Amino acid sequence: MKILNLLPIINATFWTEDMSEYLSKYLQQDTVLDTWCLDFGPGSIEGEFDEALAASSVVLKCIAAEKAGYDAIFVNCFAEPGVRAAREIVSIPVFGGFEPVVHYALGVGDKIGIVTVLPEVVPMISGMITRTGLSHRFTRLRYVSVPVLDLGDDKKVLVNALVSESEKAIVDDGADTIVLGCTGMNDLRENVERALLDMGYKVPVMEAGQAAVVMLETFVRMGLYHSRATYMKPRDKIRTWWGGEEKKNI
Amino acid sequence: MKILNLLPIINATFWTEDMSEYLSKYLQQDTVLDTWCLDFGPGSIEGEFDEALAASSVVLKCIAAEKAGYDAIFVNCFAEPGVRAAREIVSIPVFGGFEPVVHYALGVGDKIGIVTVLPEVVPMISGMITRTGLSHRFTRLRYVSVPVLDLGDDKKVLVNALVSESEKAIVDDGADTIVLGCTGMNDLRENVERALLDMGYKVPVMEAGQAAVVMLETFVRMGLYHSRATYMKPRDKIRTWWGGEEKKNI
Amino acid sequence: MKILNLLPIINATFWTEDMSEYLSKYLQQDTVLDTWCLDFGPGSIEGEFDEALAASSVVLKCIAAEKAGYDAIFVNCFAEPGVRAAREIVSIPVFGGFEPVVHYALGVGDKIGIVTVLPEVVPMISGMITRTGLSHRFTRLRYVSVPVLDLGDDKKVLVNALVSESEKAIVDDGADTIVLGCTGMNDLRENVERALLDMGYKVPVMEAGQAAVVMLETFVRMGLYHSRATYMKPRDKIRTWWGGEEKKNI
Amino acid sequence: MKILNLLPIINATFWTEDMSEYLSKYLQQDTVLDTWCLDFGPGSIEGEFDEALAASSVVLKCIAAEKAGYDAIFVNCFAEPGVRAAREIVSIPVFGGFEPVVHYALGVGDKIGIVTVLPEVVPMISGMITRTGLSHRFTRLRYVSVPVLDLGDDKKVLVNALVSESEKAIVDDGADTIVLGCTGMNDLRENVERALLDMGYKVPVMEAGQAAVVMLETFVRMGLYHSRATYMKPRDKIRTWWGGEEKKNI
Amino acid sequence: MKILNLLPIINATFWTEDMSEYLSKYLQQDTVLDTWCLDFGPGSIEGEFDEALAASSVVLKCIAAEKAGYDAIFVNCFAEPGVRAAREIVSIPVFGGFEPVVHYALGVGDKIGIVTVLPEVVPMISGMITRTGLSHRFTRLRYVSVPVLDLGDDKKVLVNALVSESEKAIVDDGADTIVLGCTGMNDLRENVERALLDMGYKVPVMEAGQAAVVMLETFVRMGLYHSRATYMKPRDKIRTWWGGEEKKNI
Amino acid sequence: MKILNLLPIINATFWTEDMSEYLSKYLQQDTVLDTWCLDFGPGSIEGEFDEALAASSVVLKCIAAEKAGYDAIFVNCFAEPGVRAAREIVSIPVFGGFEPVVHYALGVGDKIGIVTVLPEVVPMISGMITRTGLSHRFTRLRYVSVPVLDLGDDKKVLVNALVSESEKAIVDDGADTIVLGCTGMNDLRENVERALLDMGYKVPVMEAGQAAVVMLETFVRMGLYHSRATYMKPRDKIRTWWGGEEKKNI
Repeated sequence: MKILNLLPIINATFWTEDMSEYLSKYLQQDTVLDTWCLDFGPGSIEGEFDEALAASSVVLKCIAAEKAGYDAIFVNCFAEPGVRAAREIVSIPVFGGFEPVVHYALGVGDKIGIVTVLPEVVPMISGMITRTGLSHRFTRLRYVSVPVLDLGDDKKVLVNALVSESEKAIVDDGADTIVLGCTGMNDLRENVERALLDMGYKVPVMEAGQAAVVMLETFVRMGLYHSRATYMKPRDKIRTWWGGEEKKNI
Repeated sequence: MKILNLLPIINATFWTEDMSEYLSKYLQQDTVLDTWCLDFGPGSIEGEFDEALAASSVVLKCIAAEKAGYDAIFVNCFAEPGVRAAREIVSIPVFGGFEPVVHYALGVGDKIGIVTVLPEVVPMISGMITRTGLSHRFTRLRYVSVPVLDLGDDKKVLVNALVSESEKAIVDDGADTIVLGCTGMNDLRENVERALLDMGYKVPVMEAGQAAVVMLETFVRMGLYHSRATYMKPRDKIRTWWGGEEKKNI
Repeated sequence: MKILNLLPIINATFWTEDMSEYLSKYLQQDTVLDTWCLDFGPGSIEGEFDEALAASSVVLKCIAAEKAGYDAIFVNCFAEPGVRAAREIVSIPVFGGFEPVVHYALGVGDKIGIVTVLPEVVPMISGMITRTGLSHRFTRLRYVSVPVLDLGDDKKVLVNALVSESEKAIVDDGADTIVLGCTGMNDLRENVERALLDMGYKVPVMEAGQAAVVMLETFVRMGLYHSRATYMKPRDKIRTWWGGEEKKNI
Repeated sequence: MKILNLLPIINATFWTEDMSEYLSKYLQQDTVLDTWCLDFGPGSIEGEFDEALAASSVVLKCIAAEKAGYDAIFVNCFAEPGVRAAREIVSIPVFGGFEPVVHYALGVGDKIGIVTVLPEVVPMISGMITRTGLSHRFTRLRYVSVPVLDLGDDKKVLVNALVSESEKAIVDDGADTIVLGCTGMNDLRENVERALLDMGYKVPVMEAGQAAVVMLETFVRMGLYHSRATYMKPRDKIRTWWGGEEKKNI
Repeated sequence: MKILNLLPIINATFWTEDMSEYLSKYLQQDTVLDTWCLDFGPGSIEGEFDEALAASSVVLKCIAAEKAGYDAIFVNCFAEPGVRAAREIVSIPVFGGFEPVVHYALGVGDKIGIVTVLPEVVPMISGMITRTGLSHRFTRLRYVSVPVLDLGDDKKVLVNALVSESEKAIVDDGADTIVLGCTGMNDLRENVERALLDMGYKVPVMEAGQAAVVMLETFVRMGLYHSRATYMKPRDKIRTWWGGEEKKNI
Repeated sequence: MKILNLLPIINATFWTEDMSEYLSKYLQQDTVLDTWCLDFGPGSIEGEFDEALAASSVVLKCIAAEKAGYDAIFVNCFAEPGVRAAREIVSIPVFGGFEPVVHYALGVGDKIGIVTVLPEVVPMISGMITRTGLSHRFTRLRYVSVPVLDLGDDKKVLVNALVSESEKAIVDDGADTIVLGCTGMNDLRENVERALLDMGYKVPVMEAGQAAVVMLETFVRMGLYHSRATYMKPRDKIRTWWGGEEKKNI
């Protein structure tokens, strides 16, 4: 099985070998994970402007990925740019970072507390929660005020901030499950969970990237697919895109 | 006051002088309405794939429009591609076709029945309703099964279909207000309303385009603006886009 | 166009020339605004008891206003006494202070924070929010503990209290839009907005009175009307009211 | 214990000895039930216009009833005109026809199907359901198209219509409990229930009037009272009302 | 009328004569209240594990009670183990401690604040609230951290804790009605209410046990029954239970 | 990895080798699936009475299974008897038939249509949906009127009935995903899906049993566990159960 890890950003250098290894941790032996990034788009996704810039590029990459023989696509971002759009045009499973971790978290407890990066992504994530119709299962959104591209700067400070916001989510908001609300902080999951445990909170801390690729693997294995009653195949008509020198039909 | 009528599609020929006149009908004397369309994107918007293709182009046009001195922007599509994204990057009011007509309709009655074009836009519009948190004010979505670019083909047949679906919305679903769910069928509003009246239903039929430009005019007149607590200014960072021959920073 | 500003209270002296000027600020040149008050009823509306006392008088004044040739009626109170009742019996647009400002605010941001006068109006406003089915768009109600008729006593103290409660609404409750929840504090809007801006919150502060008369003007201009599928014409039957010396049929 | 049966209408003749007997059927031996009606107001309540006309008269009668030594007041109408207002100004329990039967019905099953008189009361009752926050427990409203004052005309036809609408509520809408949505059709409860039983539906049919007086009796017996945290005592201030020849302060 | 007070626990000694007297306080002269407890099950109910252990025993006792001629059954626990199950198999009214007090409280105010015993019952009660579809009428759950069987240890400390949590429910959460969320603390209702009153809160404090038996009495008196459209009679089939020495069919 | 397939019924003969094979179809090579049933309880689960009879036996079996070294437990019933209770007392993942298939289905489409066996399980499943807070993602429940133990009688008739109800769910109710609402009809999934496809509906049909064991496998593989903030460990105290000849502490 071949899963594409599609970064909806232009920073190829952002993604390291370690990150791939981390992401593949729970995949089966024969599952291959490749990583692509965008040719055009934002350096990171920190709001709906960035998301809009990424969406069309993501969709076009998904078309390419299906042609290249991938079995499933992970759009590696909690904001899920282009994910629903891609499901209309390709026939393989496509997930972003939000849905899979949430769908697993629903089985872990009653109330999910998301801790994310910046205040400016809060309305975007809040809108995603509302759109899913699952609002009753979430507590208020919390954030650590660290931009995505600075997440690697000082891991200790970041873990402390995540733990502190997680504790507020548990004690003040009644969360019983913590979800890290940015796929860029995946490798801190265990540290945060352990710190909370040391403080007496036996509360699972869940990470979006691993959840997504395992969910995709399950979808492929079980032959699940996104419903065509909702994700209907787009009609043929003129659609143009930049193709190097000239307009190109998609 | 200068309002931009931004068509989020590439068909410049689709838009006629008559349509501009219709759209301006309720604007004040000194309000100017110009029309732009996209350089790249879909021929019409009939699903989330089309919407994703349009979003980035819309956002870039909005940046250009603000620089060109427009006071407000109407993204002329019920699906509102790129609208929330644009509000982050520009400081002038931006509305698509969904919100303004809905916000006026809330004052007209208790239950809004949307009649739109095709089954494939139903999940998209349904998602917009859910995301706004206003679901309790809508009845089920209905459609006439006519593609956007065929809307002009046989107006009589189209009006009949709209009237028939509107009647079901009123009688079966309990709608007390009808909203035409595509900005491409705006000029049929009066015909549909009159036909319903002849059948004994004194139910307002509302159209998205006129509602949007009048709402924008009101926003400019009263100095209203989209809250920066939600639509936060995007941080500076690398974002690239196609600029003719080479990558261009936005 | 003639709009009636109907005060649902008996204090004719409460309303000043300045207030009319303020209210008309965003109306078009040829829109005339007249002010009426009630013959019988409460001195101010600060609860459901006052509202019930006002309702019948409001409705009868609305009937008179339509006969007198008004094109639209603003029932000048956030609690909207008699507004839905009036829509059944007259055929011109009728708005109170709650709906129009809320419908505009829905286009400004995601979460509306109302700051009102007294604790005793909180259940009433809360009930209005619930009844509209828009609860998901509001944060908790806040108030400054100043009776309506004392609102003019010390404007500086009042502005400070409004700013302080608005800040809590923004920071603690997640409001991105502030609505002043009493039509008696309309002239403080700009002061509160400016003070919040000085504190770093670029959050619109909206006022109900101006929103209402502009909304009514728009309704008249565009020919919008309240749906008769909901606001059905009352059947003929005996209804009596006091008419000076004897019972009078309405 | 003395309970007042307050008809919020002016038709004293509408109410018969038989009706009082019916209403008292489940009261305790020493509970006295008196009936009052209004001096001014509507002949029946069939919409929000009628309700607004009744509200102030109801509230003033409630003040008089408390002074006259009544222990509890039943505002005998499903639309509950003035009920919340009255709770602010008096200190004895006040119920209309909607709440008590609904609160008992919640213990009878999962989904309440209301069958009422006319289409024009549907938005009003629908608004009451929404305002209570109990919408999830109701199926769609149904009606028999008979005006209140004609309810006594042909009982057989009326029962048939009620049974027919009740069956639709059960089979099509999933109701498991029927509530007769007008206090004027109380004496038909048993007939409707029996007819449904004969058709194979073991579904309770509940009536508002008996539910209300039994609920009031229970409130008085157990010393329950409406919370002053919500129904706050109105502040002293000028309020005028018609008192025969001149304005009178309340 | 004979009502069974069924303790869903095995501690016969827990229940005293005083408790029976307290519970019967508002019942009519000729209503008899007997008390049973379980042969097998938990010592107290403090979570869903205890509830599951009690459920089957409760249901079997309900079958026995109906055979023994009881007119109604109170399953004396806020968690209502086996209550919905019992309604399927017996034909007399069955209530636990949650529903009746809540249904009365809905008529007392707008927002119910439950104060219960332990953090571990919070998810269970929270689930009950959600399942009823009445969530909009509740504020967050609060607890005093005292196990059920220790409730009698130091009444003064317990009352203080209840008052303190009730105050938070009123001031911080906006509750206007307090419900004691465990049938084991019923005799403290008056103390808590009086203490709150002394602090200036005229907020009713309601207790589950008395509410339940009075509700049952009302159901029997009025001939109300649980709808068979929801609580359908179980089909005949093999079901076994421990009957001393051998498997026994139920 | 060892997963227990715990049938919450007493019919050991009901479960065949074929069924185990079917259930294991998507499990990994080294995952072992064993099947247990109850010593006491119902022959099948078709309502809350049956569920209550099963709950305590299920919980005790779960304790035994954890002691016997199982890594995870599938309580093989859509009604999930004792599942939440078991999560309190054991530390391994426990799922019933409802949650896992629903959590996967949420990633497949927007609206889940459940088709189940009998009308009497509808209120029970409806209650489960409400309790999860996911109601917005479900259409109305539909059923084929076949008792659980007759599901094997005539597969062709059963498939036809399932297809017919599924079509109504898709066309009339707007479902885009079908879930078979009883773990006893799992082997019909493919037939129903294929029949729908032949009729032109590209709508996934999902089955609860396979979803559950794959979800459990994922939980064990990824080290996920149910949150102890919600499923708190029960306190030590007396709890008795039948132990052959005498009372036994649990």
